[in-house]
Formats: sequence, structure tokens, C-alpha cells
Amino acid sequence: MKIIFLGTGSAIPTLKRNVSSIAISFPESGKFWLLDCGEGTQHQIRRTSLKLSRLEKIFISHLHGDHTFGLPGLLATRGMEDAKSKVEIYGPEGIDSFIKGIQRITHTYTPYELEIHTLSADDSFGVACENENYIVKHALLNHGIESHGYSIQKKSSVHFLVEKARRLNIPEGPLYGALKRGETIKLSDGRIFHGKDFLSEPIPGKKIVYCSDTTYCKNSVILARSADLLIHEATFIKQDENLAKKSFHSTVEDACRVAREANVKQLILTHFSSRYNSLKELLSQARSIFPGAMLAEDLAEYRV
Amino acid sequence: MKIIFLGTGSAIPTLKRNVSSIAISFPESGKFWLLDCGEGTQHQIRRTSLKLSRLEKIFISHLHGDHTFGLPGLLATRGMEDAKSKVEIYGPEGIDSFIKGIQRITHTYTPYELEIHTLSADDSFGVACENENYIVKHALLNHGIESHGYSIQKKSSVHFLVEKARRLNIPEGPLYGALKRGETIKLSDGRIFHGKDFLSEPIPGKKIVYCSDTTYCKNSVILARSADLLIHEATFIKQDENLAKKSFHSTVEDACRVAREANVKQLILTHFSSRYNSLKELLSQARSIFPGAMLAEDLAEYRV
Repeated sequence: MKIIFLGTGSAIPTLKRNVSSIAISFPESGKFWLLDCGEGTQHQIRRTSLKLSRLEKIFISHLHGDHTFGLPGLLATRGMEDAKSKVEIYGPEGIDSFIKGIQRITHTYTPYELEIHTLSADDSFGVACENENYIVKHALLNHGIESHGYSIQKKSSVHFLVEKARRLNIPEGPLYGALKRGETIKLSDGRIFHGKDFLSEPIPGKKIVYCSDTTYCKNSVILARSADLLIHEATFIKQDENLAKKSFHSTVEDACRVAREANVKQLILTHFSSRYNSLKELLSQARSIFPGAMLAEDLAEYRV
Repeated sequence: MKIIFLGTGSAIPTLKRNVSSIAISFPESGKFWLLDCGEGTQHQIRRTSLKLSRLEKIFISHLHGDHTFGLPGLLATRGMEDAKSKVEIYGPEGIDSFIKGIQRITHTYTPYELEIHTLSADDSFGVACENENYIVKHALLNHGIESHGYSIQKKSSVHFLVEKARRLNIPEGPLYGALKRGETIKLSDGRIFHGKDFLSEPIPGKKIVYCSDTTYCKNSVILARSADLLIHEATFIKQDENLAKKSFHSTVEDACRVAREANVKQLILTHFSSRYNSLKELLSQARSIFPGAMLAEDLAEYRV
């Protein structure tokens, strides 16, 4: 998976950091997904190699404008560019009437299917969607209004042990297919082989977790458990913890605490307050807790 | 008045042209107004010397997204920047529920008064607002949905003829004030003067007219009559008049026709389709009809 940060600032867009959005692209399918969609996300996408026609899913954390105001324009532009494939949107209660209400009043028509899924907030955890290769889970975070974190996990896979089959002089062709499907085969020389003996141990898929916006919360830790990458908001430095508490945001310390407790492999912080001219102090605080922590930058790419 | 073009493309934002918005700033008050507010207008404003706290009025032509999707974010950012002065918004039927609906669903609070005026579409022409110095009129255009053109006219003014008063040895001070107010004064030497004799002929105020989106229409001509500057959409070149008709837009020929029939002093075209890699042909067609015509560019400024 390739992650492209489209907006890494909080609340107010600046010339250096747009409001929240992250693209995750899948080289195997050529498709990409979005995590949040602040105003100007479609403008940022134009600065990358992403094509709106390849957009497949959008996951919205919560309904605050800096995470949603880019949705109507992006969906409209995708329509005007004549994209035909379906887009699925996942988000909290109200996401449906937000999008449909705006489309109705502004006479916006999308020539592709738009499927909007309202996540349940009854349980703390749930599955947003699942396909052959990926499972996306969501967890309730703590932001004053309904806010969801997301984990995107590639499913574990097994490989066919082709070298083993060759070593045993099993003829290539349909018999390999049968073994891959786990079937038992009998060769003309009388030997019998079982498919399960030709499959590798399951290789766990990569896991990316996105927690924004939220205070420190246990659900983030559970969602992020052993992730290959945690992207967590860190709106404030430690000294501004009162501001963080008041606005239901995280300090850099809160974010790093989640990363440590969840034992994640890598941590990228994002959603920085525009009050800081420099993020040196924030980075230094982060690395004192989670040594490899990185700060997201607009249009920066990262591979997992 | 200073005009700053914030977005000069139609429908889809590109790296060179954002979607529609124009700022008009008033050096005498330090305030500015907006004509339309497509997505990313607040981002464009950051690239100018304009301050959102000085924003006073927004005039929306019609509700299509490329003219409105920047409103919610701009209003929210202005609030987060702690601006306190009132903003008044003028637009077609639905403008109120568009803004209020989004603010409600996204929990957006603005710590300043927001007054939304729905224009009447019962008559072809009307007055949107008027103050001591300016009058803003609107006219119904032809765009498939309710769309308004706007004329912003400075009121005519008279100047006190200070040199004449000095030549007549009228003592400076309160007597000048009385003459300026049109009163009659009597000097200690017995001479009598009337205020009206010390006021210049009325000097007509400048007039700017904005017509977007629309086909050619007579109301545009009436609204733009003798304007100092007409800003008119010219989405298409002449050869694409079928596209223009289908989408209720103007060709460059339509726009120039309005300018000529209204006998305006200057014409600036805007709202160009992103289908044209170059606008050379469009400019050439414009100048063959209205020799001084200019094409708007993002962030370009023009003084009237």
C-alpha cells in the first residue's frame, strides 16, 4: 500500500498544510481510497499521480468541516470527468444527509453509483467493509462528536510451494492447480499428495491504522494493536494539553502513548495546529517517547 | 475598487485556474466583498493580501457547486480566526438552507453574525443592498437554474469647492462645514454665501457588473448598461456554441455581444472551460468583437 498525505493541518488550511485527507493506493488493483476529505482535497489530488476515476472508497472519521468539506466538490468533479465506477463512502450518522442534502440543493448529479454506508455507533468496534484482500475495521474514538478510527488490513495469504512440488517431480499443469485448491491428488506412479502440504504458513497482511480526531483513548490502542503503521493526530504539543482537552484532541504525548501501548511498528503524526510556526518541538517530544516517529507533510508518500 | 480574481475556471478546478470567485476590495473602508465562492476560495485568499476578518458581503450568483462549495469552509475558518464582524450573504432561493443545513450537520459554529438574504426571483431586477456609498442591483440571468447577475455601483458624489471658498476669503473652519452641509452663511463683513454654490457637479460613481453563469440575455445588457467594467463568463469559444447552448453558458461571442450592446468601457472574460489548453483562440475571437477585451487570470488584480 502507498500512502499519500493530501492534507496534514488541523481546522484551517494554510499555504503549507491543507486540511485532512490521506490517500491509500493499491498497486495491485490501481485503485485508491481516501481517509477523510477536507476542502481542497480534489486540488491536492491534482498535484499527485492519482486519478479520480480510480477512487473506490472514502472513509470519513467525523463530520467536522475540515474532514468533510471537500466531499461535494470531489464527487462532482469525478462525475464531470465522466468516471463511471461506483464509489462507496463510510462515515458516522449524518454522512448520508450531508452529501445528499448538498447534492439536492446544488443540483449536483453524479453519473456513477454512490453508495453511502452509515457506520453503527452502538458498538465500540465494527467492520466497515471487507473484500477478498482487505478488511477495514472501525472503532469509536473520543472527539465530542461521533468520530471513528479505521484500520485497513490486508488479509493474510498463503503461497503455493512450487519448488517443493518440482523437487518431488509432480508434473506441472492441472495437478498444481488442484494442490493450490487444497485437494488431494494421485499421480500415475501411485504416489498420493495432499494440497495442505504444499501451502506456506499464512503470511500476515500489512495493517495501517488512522486515528483522527480524538483524545488519547483505549479504543485507539485496541484498533492499532501491532499495526505496521499508525497515523495518529497530534494537534498540540505537550505544553498545550489544556487546549487539547478542551477541543477533544491529542497532544503529541497522547499520540505516542497510543503507539507505544499498541506496539506499532511505525508512527506518523498529522493534523498539526497552525499555531506552531515550527514543528521542531513537537517532533522532539514525539521522538523522546517513540524514537522513530515521523511528521506527515502534504504530498509526502510512504509505503507499507 | 480593486478587483482580485480568485478563480477563473469553470466547473472543475485545475492547477492554473480555481473555480469561481472574485474579490472586490474597497480602499476607503478596508473591507472586501466576494462574488461567488467556489471550493478553495479561502485557499486563494491566503495567496493575496486580503484578510477574512475584513470580509463584509458575499454575493452568490447561483447554487451550482463550482460557485458555492467554498462557502462552508470559508465561513468556518473566518470564525476560527476569531473574526467578530457581521457577514451578509445574498443569493438565490435555497442559499439559506444550503449554508444552515451544512453548519447544522457538521457542527460548525460561527462566532459572528451571519445574515443570509434570499433574493427575489419574482422580478427580473431588484436591489440586493444599498448603503451610504454603494448600491448593488441584481438581475435574473438565464442558466437553467435561478442565476443572478450583480451590478455594484458607487453612488455619485459632490465635492466641496474649497479653492473657490479660499478665493473669496471665507475664513476656514466651521463656516466651511456649514457650506458643505448646504447651509447659507453670513460673514461679519456682511457678505452672504449659499452652500449649493460651493458644491461640484455630481461625479458619477464607478460601476462593475458581474454576469456568470448565463447564456446571452437581455437582462445582462440592461444590468451592464454603461458599466466601467463588465466581468462576463465566456466558457466556450464560438465553435462550441452547441455546448454553450446545452449547458446554458456563453460563448465568447455571446459575452462580447453583451459588452457591446451595453456600451461598457471595459470587458474582462472569465469562467473558461478546462477543455482548452490555450485561450489564444478565445482571446482572438473576443478582440475581434470587443477590441480591449481581457481574459481574467487567477490572482490577477484590476482597478476601477
